[in-house]
Amino acid sequence: MPQDTALDGLIRRLGRLPGLGPRSARRVALHLLRGDSALDQLIDALNLVRSRIRTCSTCGNLDETDPCGLCTDPSRDASRLCVVQDVAGLWALERAHAFRGRYHVLGGLLSALEGVGPEDLGFDRLVSRVTRETVSEVILALPATVEGQSTAHVLADLLRDAGVTAITGLAQGVPVGGELDVLDDGTLTAALHARRPLET
Amino acid sequence: MPQDTALDGLIRRLGRLPGLGPRSARRVALHLLRGDSALDQLIDALNLVRSRIRTCSTCGNLDETDPCGLCTDPSRDASRLCVVQDVAGLWALERAHAFRGRYHVLGGLLSALEGVGPEDLGFDRLVSRVTRETVSEVILALPATVEGQSTAHVLADLLRDAGVTAITGLAQGVPVGGELDVLDDGTLTAALHARRPLET
Repeated sequence: MPQDTALDGLIRRLGRLPGLGPRSARRVALHLLRGDSALDQLIDALNLVRSRIRTCSTCGNLDETDPCGLCTDPSRDASRLCVVQDVAGLWALERAHAFRGRYHVLGGLLSALEGVGPEDLGFDRLVSRVTRETVSEVILALPATVEGQSTAHVLADLLRDAGVTAITGLAQGVPVGGELDVLDDGTLTAALHARRPLET
Repeated sequence: MPQDTALDGLIRRLGRLPGLGPRSARRVALHLLRGDSALDQLIDALNLVRSRIRTCSTCGNLDETDPCGLCTDPSRDASRLCVVQDVAGLWALERAHAFRGRYHVLGGLLSALEGVGPEDLGFDRLVSRVTRETVSEVILALPATVEGQSTAHVLADLLRDAGVTAITGLAQGVPVGGELDVLDDGTLTAALHARRPLET
């Protein structure tokens, strides 16, 4: 097409979303213009999110209220705080129904390469929250990557200095349902080092 | 998350788009809420498309004008008309810069199973367009599927009855760059049947 239309602009913008490329962006744009109300409904849903969703000033979660539903839920154990990299990690743990404490979203990981330091991730805010809220255990549920683990180490030092005694991380090992021959060497080595007696 | 927030609604809606599932819909939603202007820009682009893009009443293309830029381009050959299933097919041919005539978008294919008949696809509108515009060749660029080819045959009969003599279809054969051992049997058979003398 010779000129640049509103449709080209939308396709470019859709193509910049994670997981979408030029081809899938074209498919989505055509789907939205198919004549049913898909376009209207998507615009309505986006406008609703823009007007209603905010970041929880306590934990960094996204919700319609501030503080969020997780921070105000009295059935959750306020003495255990789970530190995650981002909201996606928080959602993953919630979907697993594996944790009934509170969360703290860092919003990133330490990275010398990208110039992300402790001040960018609000480490002092986390430490003061932990001491203020009488948290007894901090779980550092950060990714098992170099950045994730070095961030966990720096945070653990800060929290220990602040008087927190129980600082834990997620176990590393074979994923549930994992076949040995598709696992990487690092995971296999970690799982072997952390081997444990079988329960009988 | 216990309650159903505006964010859950957006993720559900995104997950219904072609090529997106629940997981990628969550990623897109979090990307949009990352704090830069991605959400605003997407809403603006969608609103612009909603207010500006219309279906060309001549050919069925999507553009900001009606008739569309392709129908009004005087440099295009009005005597050749290329019939495509949908706008995606039109765009594919335009990207290939392979055709400089006009288009006609059917908006679907004949399907006894889904109850799509000639009246749903506006076959009479196409025939009257062809006779009105003194089209000398109609190219049926429909997919090489059962539905595509049976639609092409029905259309070809109608067009012949209306006096069109040159009715063509896309050639079938080995795709450019295609290795023989990854091709399906049908394509190989068609390519062998349609074999041609090598130019020297």
